[in-house]
Amino acid sequence: MKINGKAYRTIWPGEDGASVVIIDQTKLPHRFETVTLRTAEEAAHAILTMQVRGAPLIGATAAYGLALALLRDASDAGLAGAVALLAKQRPTAVNLRWALEEMRRTVAPMAPEARAAAAFAKAQAIADEDVETCRRIGVHGLALIRAIAEMKPAGAPVNVLTHCNAGWLACVDWGTATSPIYQAHDAGIPVHVWVDETRPRNQGAALTAFELASHGVPHTLIVDNAGGHLMQHGQVDLCIVGTDRVAANGDVANKIGTYLKALAAHDNGVPFYVALPYSTIDWTIASGHDIPIEERSADEVLSMHGQLTDGSVASVAIAAAGSPAANPAFDVTPARLVTGFITERGVAPADRSGLLALYPERRESAA
Amino acid sequence: MKINGKAYRTIWPGEDGASVVIIDQTKLPHRFETVTLRTAEEAAHAILTMQVRGAPLIGATAAYGLALALLRDASDAGLAGAVALLAKQRPTAVNLRWALEEMRRTVAPMAPEARAAAAFAKAQAIADEDVETCRRIGVHGLALIRAIAEMKPAGAPVNVLTHCNAGWLACVDWGTATSPIYQAHDAGIPVHVWVDETRPRNQGAALTAFELASHGVPHTLIVDNAGGHLMQHGQVDLCIVGTDRVAANGDVANKIGTYLKALAAHDNGVPFYVALPYSTIDWTIASGHDIPIEERSADEVLSMHGQLTDGSVASVAIAAAGSPAANPAFDVTPARLVTGFITERGVAPADRSGLLALYPERRESAA
Repeated sequence: MKINGKAYRTIWPGEDGASVVIIDQTKLPHRFETVTLRTAEEAAHAILTMQVRGAPLIGATAAYGLALALLRDASDAGLAGAVALLAKQRPTAVNLRWALEEMRRTVAPMAPEARAAAAFAKAQAIADEDVETCRRIGVHGLALIRAIAEMKPAGAPVNVLTHCNAGWLACVDWGTATSPIYQAHDAGIPVHVWVDETRPRNQGAALTAFELASHGVPHTLIVDNAGGHLMQHGQVDLCIVGTDRVAANGDVANKIGTYLKALAAHDNGVPFYVALPYSTIDWTIASGHDIPIEERSADEVLSMHGQLTDGSVASVAIAAAGSPAANPAFDVTPARLVTGFITERGVAPADRSGLLALYPERRESAA
Repeated sequence: MKINGKAYRTIWPGEDGASVVIIDQTKLPHRFETVTLRTAEEAAHAILTMQVRGAPLIGATAAYGLALALLRDASDAGLAGAVALLAKQRPTAVNLRWALEEMRRTVAPMAPEARAAAAFAKAQAIADEDVETCRRIGVHGLALIRAIAEMKPAGAPVNVLTHCNAGWLACVDWGTATSPIYQAHDAGIPVHVWVDETRPRNQGAALTAFELASHGVPHTLIVDNAGGHLMQHGQVDLCIVGTDRVAANGDVANKIGTYLKALAAHDNGVPFYVALPYSTIDWTIASGHDIPIEERSADEVLSMHGQLTDGSVASVAIAAAGSPAANPAFDVTPARLVTGFITERGVAPADRSGLLALYPERRESAA
């Protein structure tokens, strides 16, 4: 999507053929800076320090990181070492391990001297495939937005509420929850986005608001407490969120607070959609009860990152020193509160039969 | 309640008989400092700058402020001028005008030389009455907590979730939503409080967590997004919140985000109580739809106040410069989501007949 009028992806090969360029997302929203990665170690560091984040982007970065490693040492030992190095940076990131395994399977059978070029091509293919998946999610979601726009007075914006960042900054381009929004905007459908700030890490304020502003999509930042009130007053036409994992029965794990917005949407008759690529469906998990919820550091609750008036970035303590805090990072929204899933194959009800209608090839293996 | 082992109110007369002492709440939670007010102008400044906040405490401060004014000029003109000065500091604070009118009615018929002493006595009576009202709310709420404790294994804490600060720092002592909690704790019933941080102004993190810690009540700070997840997992036994205004049908206006917690409580069978004194019921308003919702400054959403590592307090910008934001300060929780009201007269269902059962004298005047 666009930043300052120029089209970007979140990761792209350097012109020298021996590097990869990323956007340093730790600097957002206050500064837009790119970083050139020249080694697998630099790629690993970018993943570890969350200069890149979001499952698809982590996978693509690991894939390119492996290609960088093979430029220097394409031996079997070099390949194995680089896979191990990259995989350990985010131990719970399924997509990271998936991308590395795809890369390994592609290059391992080859002669060492052919591996680096093949790895760059494969990394590019992984990135391109993610872009295409997100683009298709947007095509299907666009139809939903268009249908709502046609029921509103001409020129009245369709108001979409989203939580966290399921945007292009988490992917390679388009995003998942944001792809329908960008496509509606690009198609000339007036759209306005309510952006939940998404405490404790503020991905809405720092990333979603930034990327919408950069592409020129009208939006308004709100605290996580405000969405229910807006829905009560008819100011939200639909919700679209992303997800970290969907169980086989349609229960949705996503950033903490998603459940509260789904409750409010249900209470006010507002459609609540979850946008996701097929890779997010965990067919081995029967219901949301079985999805483990990560408990993160209390520091994220007790402090807040931001920019001081002198332009420097600092962390401020918002509670008394020594205050105890809990920080569950995700919650599970029961399928009964989800109007539908928007995937690269279409829109379906949020239940087992809806998922199987989109992915009939999983009928045998589904839990 | 206690701070560092010593019992405090939020406001008390100075030992010299010519001053009033308050806790400077703008310094909390990072520093505990008291301020001595010697003039009506200083009291007005304390109200304006929110060194004191919360409807009952604002009323008590205005009452004492008027007494301070009469020490210097007890003429009719002095009385009228001081009332006007104090009333204009928070134009929408109903309690502020109520307290000043009580004071004026008490001292206006008196000879000027008798006014100051009478004003100090009346201010003290207003403060004492608030303490007694809050104490009684706690007695009735304590019975609810005790009943839950008796159904749990011996020693297992009763987990209460609260939103914003309806604590003693907003009143003179006890608080409204916190009064049952303090009384349970003081009675030896194990109680633990989940404290919503309450963006955007963070009254939970800055005030509720501070006052619970100061009195020794076990508690855990959480982001506003987390409460629904905790309720899904059986970690909340009941919710108790305060309110800014209750309509005659039982709809509850309270800090933004209250509605989302009430929805989650309802979805999980968790009792959701609202604690309030009689003065919060607006019998002239038929339903929550008619309660105007204040829209506050976008700056509260776009930035966050806190303490830097050097001990100084600063504000950090959490979104990109120029980001648009909306800031509705309150929402309305429909009466159907409220298990009951806890008032100084007892506990009643959250509807018109429940309110009238507690306040039968309003049967004629209720909307």
